[in-house]
Amino acid sequence: MDLEDTLLMMPGPVPVVPRILRAMSKPMINHRSAEFGILYDECREILADVFRTKNETFILSGSGSCAMEAGVGNIVSRDDTVVTIENGKFGERFTQIVPRYCNLRTVKSEWGTPIDLEGIAEALEEGAAAVTLINNETSAGILNPAAEVGKLAHKHDALFIMDGVTSIGGDNVDVDKWGADIAIVGSQKCIAAPPGLSMVAVSDRAWERINECKTRPYYSDLASYRKSANKTPTQTPYTPAVPLFYAMHEALRIVKEEGMEARIRRHHAGSASIRGAAQALGIEMFPQLDKHSSYSNTVTAMKAPAGIDGNDIKNGMKKRGIIIAGGQDRLSGKIFRIGSMGNFTARDMLTTIGTLELVLKDIGVIDRLGEGVEAAQAVLEKL
Amino acid sequence: MDLEDTLLMMPGPVPVVPRILRAMSKPMINHRSAEFGILYDECREILADVFRTKNETFILSGSGSCAMEAGVGNIVSRDDTVVTIENGKFGERFTQIVPRYCNLRTVKSEWGTPIDLEGIAEALEEGAAAVTLINNETSAGILNPAAEVGKLAHKHDALFIMDGVTSIGGDNVDVDKWGADIAIVGSQKCIAAPPGLSMVAVSDRAWERINECKTRPYYSDLASYRKSANKTPTQTPYTPAVPLFYAMHEALRIVKEEGMEARIRRHHAGSASIRGAAQALGIEMFPQLDKHSSYSNTVTAMKAPAGIDGNDIKNGMKKRGIIIAGGQDRLSGKIFRIGSMGNFTARDMLTTIGTLELVLKDIGVIDRLGEGVEAAQAVLEKL
Repeated sequence: MDLEDTLLMMPGPVPVVPRILRAMSKPMINHRSAEFGILYDECREILADVFRTKNETFILSGSGSCAMEAGVGNIVSRDDTVVTIENGKFGERFTQIVPRYCNLRTVKSEWGTPIDLEGIAEALEEGAAAVTLINNETSAGILNPAAEVGKLAHKHDALFIMDGVTSIGGDNVDVDKWGADIAIVGSQKCIAAPPGLSMVAVSDRAWERINECKTRPYYSDLASYRKSANKTPTQTPYTPAVPLFYAMHEALRIVKEEGMEARIRRHHAGSASIRGAAQALGIEMFPQLDKHSSYSNTVTAMKAPAGIDGNDIKNGMKKRGIIIAGGQDRLSGKIFRIGSMGNFTARDMLTTIGTLELVLKDIGVIDRLGEGVEAAQAVLEKL
Repeated sequence: MDLEDTLLMMPGPVPVVPRILRAMSKPMINHRSAEFGILYDECREILADVFRTKNETFILSGSGSCAMEAGVGNIVSRDDTVVTIENGKFGERFTQIVPRYCNLRTVKSEWGTPIDLEGIAEALEEGAAAVTLINNETSAGILNPAAEVGKLAHKHDALFIMDGVTSIGGDNVDVDKWGADIAIVGSQKCIAAPPGLSMVAVSDRAWERINECKTRPYYSDLASYRKSANKTPTQTPYTPAVPLFYAMHEALRIVKEEGMEARIRRHHAGSASIRGAAQALGIEMFPQLDKHSSYSNTVTAMKAPAGIDGNDIKNGMKKRGIIIAGGQDRLSGKIFRIGSMGNFTARDMLTTIGTLELVLKDIGVIDRLGEGVEAAQAVLEKL
């Protein structure tokens, strides 16, 4: 029986509320019209607040991976070096992108362990055009110290490419203060629009390099995006995904109505409620932290209890109508992850944690029900 | 007053019928789920019929420009040469893409005049990795001889990259018979889905080159698309634009229900009705044809009458609630274009032509009303 009423509590895509779904049902418009230009302008105005930036922002008709490629491909020449930082799957993604454009140097840590700031400093000392960082490493539930990496990048005259795909719009991200030269966010995460768009903010320092770069990719050419955005009416260089722009516009209006401060507080409370419940249920967090890192405020990665396959927890939740995430690649079976991003409510957290207890009892991890929900309620009552 | 009821009769985006709009209002799903895999598989099955191909097809979450870049970027090395053929704005687009990946050679004709088959043969004789062609040059309303270019490409061992963005799904296109190694179509044209997706069909000959190519773009890496499409469940390498996949699925179901033969007949009748009306009204066609080329069956490009700015016709139509297209770039003011692509009906053609007469009378081009509509009716009565 498919009621089309499954609750997505994975780290994106997140549920899209009816107000946003309805926005997509509007008829198509000419994307070179004033009407589209106004829609795009209004999105960009709110995005400046979401990114906390004075830099120009753009909306690409492609997923976060498209924006990641834009970040690297637009600013390097073949003989440049880009330093990538890995402590999870999305860090590895930049490592896959960079060699297509220039030389690669990678500073690795185990998935879910802190990034190696000393190693990054050493790599940058040897000269690099840019350094990439996943601010919020979704695969491992760890929040990496973007401000620290930004400082190192600026000290060594490297650009700072910051993937904020699952932090921007739901957590404290200070693009300008942290010196993120290219900052990236996805549509289907904290902003809670459907998947398919990504947004970038580009600094003056980045523009200098972009204008010198002769081998920019075509579809994600940021100079083309800038040129079209400065036309009247405001445009995109290629045909935009119009229904997704309608949805993004409505999603950003919701962000504005809630206000970024309240939105971040809600995301913090959402993840804190999962951590509180986990502690009450004897479930350990997966990430190992140092003083520079912390648990993600938008996705909570937990270790599968001893002798339990994390995928059994995921599958048990699915049978009960809630989609959470397992571990990716090498972490498959070892962890499970619950997202708290987008327009979730306390209601969603309580039903998720209550259902998690049912599943954990089913597979023999806990005996008593209610302790996780109670711990979560204590956090959520402040919301 | 915005009734959200404007009739789009430009060469894409085309109107999206309620059935397809409604499909986008479904809740989000996990794009690594069996449910998404089935959706994608069903789309690919119908696409094989739309492309008339046995080659594997893929859906990219990006516009036609993304697919054009995929076509070039996946098959060349830096020291290769690609021959581009220009007789309109979209031919020029390949000329802008190629130098980002390899050496460029261009065979130019004036916009709206036949392509230079002898020049193309000469260029290919000097050695080229591929040749690009816009099958239906939307900017100029001319249908280029893809079968001829395919023959030349195969004779000279070059790949044939065919942009069928505004022909596939509405006109006779025979990807396998013509030997198109990479064929491309956009979502918002003859298939009549919203903008934001593009589809490609890739031949065995193309795969050989793709597998050798070391500098493939990341977001539009066709080898990644193939690898993910062969997983269980069927997937895309990066997060797909889920609502647009819902829409594409419904749009392709409509294509299947109508049947490709009937669909092509309808497109032929639609464009013939515009040409018939134009002749009755004394409006000349813009393209100059030779024996290998013909008028487009999906967009009709007409010369602005002597002393009239084509944009005045476009703007007059807009005031009356119908969006047609003017000329792009160097053709601005000189031509106007009416699309007949997607799920248009005889009703749409009659109201468009009837309104065109009102506009032409307003600006003093014609004295008598009704002659264009009558000519169009004579064509459409066979539909």
